[in-house]
Amino acid sequence: MSGGADPRVLIVSDEPDEFISPCAGRMEHVDYSVCSDPDDIPAALSKQSPSVVFVAPGERMRKSAVRQVVEFPTVQWVSNAGAGVEHLTPWDPARVSVTNAAGVLSEFLAEYTISALQMSNVGFPQLMAQQRRSEWVQHAWTPIAGKTISIIGLGHVGRAVARRAKALGMHVIGVRARKVATPCVDLLLPVSRLCNAMARADFVSVHAAETPETRGIIGQSSFACMARGTVFLNASRGPLVDETALLEALDNGKVSCAILDVFDREPLPANHPFWTHDKVVMSPHMADYVPDWQGRMFGAFLDNLDRFRRNEALANIVDPARGY
Amino acid sequence: MSGGADPRVLIVSDEPDEFISPCAGRMEHVDYSVCSDPDDIPAALSKQSPSVVFVAPGERMRKSAVRQVVEFPTVQWVSNAGAGVEHLTPWDPARVSVTNAAGVLSEFLAEYTISALQMSNVGFPQLMAQQRRSEWVQHAWTPIAGKTISIIGLGHVGRAVARRAKALGMHVIGVRARKVATPCVDLLLPVSRLCNAMARADFVSVHAAETPETRGIIGQSSFACMARGTVFLNASRGPLVDETALLEALDNGKVSCAILDVFDREPLPANHPFWTHDKVVMSPHMADYVPDWQGRMFGAFLDNLDRFRRNEALANIVDPARGY
Repeated sequence: MSGGADPRVLIVSDEPDEFISPCAGRMEHVDYSVCSDPDDIPAALSKQSPSVVFVAPGERMRKSAVRQVVEFPTVQWVSNAGAGVEHLTPWDPARVSVTNAAGVLSEFLAEYTISALQMSNVGFPQLMAQQRRSEWVQHAWTPIAGKTISIIGLGHVGRAVARRAKALGMHVIGVRARKVATPCVDLLLPVSRLCNAMARADFVSVHAAETPETRGIIGQSSFACMARGTVFLNASRGPLVDETALLEALDNGKVSCAILDVFDREPLPANHPFWTHDKVVMSPHMADYVPDWQGRMFGAFLDNLDRFRRNEALANIVDPARGY
Repeated sequence: MSGGADPRVLIVSDEPDEFISPCAGRMEHVDYSVCSDPDDIPAALSKQSPSVVFVAPGERMRKSAVRQVVEFPTVQWVSNAGAGVEHLTPWDPARVSVTNAAGVLSEFLAEYTISALQMSNVGFPQLMAQQRRSEWVQHAWTPIAGKTISIIGLGHVGRAVARRAKALGMHVIGVRARKVATPCVDLLLPVSRLCNAMARADFVSVHAAETPETRGIIGQSSFACMARGTVFLNASRGPLVDETALLEALDNGKVSCAILDVFDREPLPANHPFWTHDKVVMSPHMADYVPDWQGRMFGAFLDNLDRFRRNEALANIVDPARGY
C-alpha cells in the first residue's frame, strides 16, 4: 500500500462531528469529506474517490451498508472506530488494509471488568437484594487476592484485565489462540484447553473478538466444565456466549453471578429472562462508554493517518483470516 | 508493666472456641481459662486472677459488662479483638495496657471500600435499578483515575485505602489528627480543615476511630462543604456520621450515593429510611467479615503474648487520651 502526502479521507458516521470536533485542531490540513447517511455512501465514494475511509459504525451505519467501502477501488485503507470489524468482513488484504481501534478503550473496559468482579466478590448484588427486603443478615466474604481468574481472549482488553487482576494478587489463567508469552498471565492455555480454564476459575471473563471461530464458544460444554459458583462476565460481544446455556448454568448453580454488558440482540428484548434474573447484573453495552470515546477513537485514527502519509506501517492492521 | 514467662490468661468471648480453635497448636503452653457469659466475668476474674485478658466483644459481651476487666487489680494487659475500644474506656494507662487489633483486618476493609467506590464509579447501583425497570439506557461513565478521594482518618485502614486509591491513579487527600508524612497521601490536612477535604473530593471515605472528638464529626456543616454529587462511604463506626444530616445531603444532591456498612443503631431499625433510599447501598456491618477473622485476631494476640512473656513492648497499645 502506498500512502502519500495528501490522501483524500472520507468519514462515514451517523454523527461525524462528534468524532471530528474534539480533534478539530488537527484537521486543518486533512482533505476530507463526510457522509452521515448510509444511502449516500455510494455517491460519496464516487464523488471523492477516497484512499482512506474512517468508519464509525453507529445505529444507522451498521453492517450491510458499510461493507461496500472495503470494495471501492480507490480505497486503500479503512479505519474502523471500534475493535470489532464483523461488519467489514470479508475483504482482500492484498488490496485494502483494515485497521481497528484495538487498545484505545481497553483500559476502560478493564476498569469496568475489575470493578464488576470486585463488586460481585464482596457480594454487593446480594446485599442490595437483602436491602430491598429490609434484611439485616451478615455473611462472610473472602478477599479477591489468591483467587483465580480465567481470561478468555488476550487482546488489549484481556491483557489490561490481566494486569489489574495480577495487581490485586489474583492467579491469572489466560486462553489465547497464539502461544506467546503474555505479561501478568500465570498460565497460558490454547483454545483447545478452554474447558480446563473454565474448571479452575473463580471468575471467568470473556474478552475475545467475534469471529466465525469464537461465535458460541462459551456454550453448554464450556459451562459444564465450570466449578459451581463461578462468577461469569462478558463485556466483549454477545454472540460469543450461548445465552440459553448461560441461563441453564445460572439455574443449575455453575454460575453464581453473571455480569453482562453485551447480548445476542441489542437492545436486549423486553421479554428476555436476563432482565429479571436475580443472578444477572446487566449494563446496556456501555462498559467502554466514556464521555470522550469519539475523540479518543479519532485521535488514534489521526495518529495512524500521519503514519500513512509518511508511508510507515499502520498500527492495528486486522488480519481478516483471524478477524482481529 | 512486667510480663513474665507464664502469665495467666482469661479469654472473654461469646464463642471462645471460634478464636482458640484456629490457633490450637499454639495454645499448649498457655495457662488460660475462658468465660463466655458476661454475668460470669466477676467470678472468672476472682478465680483466676489473670494478668492478661483477651476480650472479643460480641452480641452478648458488649459495653458495660466487659469494662470491669480493665479495673481488676491483677490485670496488666487487656487485648481487644477489634480496633474500637469504646467499650473499655476509661482506663488508667499507668496501671493497665489496652491493645487493639488495629491492622489485622485493615486490608479487607480497604478491599471492601475500594470495591464499593469502583462499583459506584461505574454506576452499578443505578444500572441495577434500571435493570429492575427493564430500561435499556446507556450512560457515559468516567474512569476513577484522576478523581479525588478524601480519606477521613488515616489509621491502618485509611492508609490501606490510600495505597489502593493511589494505585488506581487517584488523587488522595487525607485528614489526620497527627501531622506526620503519610505514604500515598498527596495532601494531608488537619481536622480543622475537614471542610476543605470534603469540598475537593469526588469520594469521601470515613475510616476514623470513634472517640468523644470524632462522634458526629461528619454532620450538617461537613456535608454543606461538599461538592454536589459526591460519593460517601462509611465503614468505620456509625456514630461518626449524623444520619439525619446525611439523609438531608442525599436529598439535596450533595451526596449522590452513600455506601454504609455501619450505623448509629445496629441492626439498623426496620423503619429506618436508609433501607429504602434509592441512593443508599448498605451492608450489615460486614466490611471486615472474612471467614477466618477470629483466627487472625487471636493469632495477632498470641504474637503479642510472646512479646509480653519476653517483657518486650506490646504492639498496638491504645492511648486512652486519643482513643486509638
